[in-house]
Amino acid sequence: MKGRLITFEGGEGAGKSSLIKLLHEALVQKGFKVLLTREPGGSIGAERIRKLIVEKNEPDFDALTELLLLMSARRDHWIHTLRPALEEGKIILCDRFIDSSFVYQGYVGGVDLAFIKTAYEIVVEGCVYPDKTYYIDLDPKVGLSRVLTRSNQTQNNETRFEQKGLEFHQRVRQGFLDHIKTDPMRFHLLDGKACLEENLRLILKDFFENI
Amino acid sequence: MKGRLITFEGGEGAGKSSLIKLLHEALVQKGFKVLLTREPGGSIGAERIRKLIVEKNEPDFDALTELLLLMSARRDHWIHTLRPALEEGKIILCDRFIDSSFVYQGYVGGVDLAFIKTAYEIVVEGCVYPDKTYYIDLDPKVGLSRVLTRSNQTQNNETRFEQKGLEFHQRVRQGFLDHIKTDPMRFHLLDGKACLEENLRLILKDFFENI
Repeated sequence: MKGRLITFEGGEGAGKSSLIKLLHEALVQKGFKVLLTREPGGSIGAERIRKLIVEKNEPDFDALTELLLLMSARRDHWIHTLRPALEEGKIILCDRFIDSSFVYQGYVGGVDLAFIKTAYEIVVEGCVYPDKTYYIDLDPKVGLSRVLTRSNQTQNNETRFEQKGLEFHQRVRQGFLDHIKTDPMRFHLLDGKACLEENLRLILKDFFENI
Repeated sequence: MKGRLITFEGGEGAGKSSLIKLLHEALVQKGFKVLLTREPGGSIGAERIRKLIVEKNEPDFDALTELLLLMSARRDHWIHTLRPALEEGKIILCDRFIDSSFVYQGYVGGVDLAFIKTAYEIVVEGCVYPDKTYYIDLDPKVGLSRVLTRSNQTQNNETRFEQKGLEFHQRVRQGFLDHIKTDPMRFHLLDGKACLEENLRLILKDFFENI
């Protein structure tokens, strides 16, 4: 596999998507072959599965049901999008990936972390972890107020996780802060309160020095 | 868990559904509390996931994606339907269950059988295998011709597995015949060419003697 897999993690409203778009433009301008994708989703089948995961369900799915749905979407994404792009030598920028599963369904949801690791490594056919993961850290009070503003401005059905309340999102943040300690070489922590341009500058610096 | 979990397996057109309905009626008439259910499905969330699995997908899901979708549906089914019914002491009659995953995705699809076992036991919170599994064996040539007749008579979108062709269904049959050898005490083999009433009589006899 000649390409690079770079993933972005962070709570709701941390600014992941905007940052990834700017980074995508910057790398394309420099002549790199870049693939912009997201999870859950990123392939036709996985986008179908995404709808089940992110839209409101009544009664709600438990964390293990969610995890298995996410892993099924990840498998489809891997087969049809990620693996071919890595083989073609592309730089993949992926909005959320395996670390969201570890944190949302594992640390917060209580699914056994060893099972998540086992399932993941079968899905990606080996120990294929991201080359680099940028975690954008932000106080959920700030993040959720940004999301609320955004939801009022747009038609958005994907509110299942957003609506889980402050206490849930505080546990997610703590989960990420604990999780990134397990692989400090891979994770790069960014401040979600900093302006987009500053975070973009930090990522590009890190990218050219370390990836 | 006071109830009993009885599952039915067999290829397309083997007559599982008709047999289960007759058995359900017979047991209800005798005063048992019986729950009739199916997989994938059997709960609101799992029925949503079912649509993804059994309807035509383009490009198609691979066996591991399927397995993970099936396990997510099974988890929802377990939480909302199976576990409560077992706790209430009901007799559950389930049209397909874990053995279909072992055979379709494992023996035929190539997914690691040990991983299927691990995922299953996490989904059902322990080693909860069916009390009895009736496998209705039938030559796929006969089964598929029955299915074809049925499909011509009804509006049926759930054709994804039916359309996989004779060679696939022959491998499924061989998979079941190999798989049932792994747990001969649990499996009871029935002849899909026999009439429904005869198979019903055999099941009721076995039920009252052994379950």
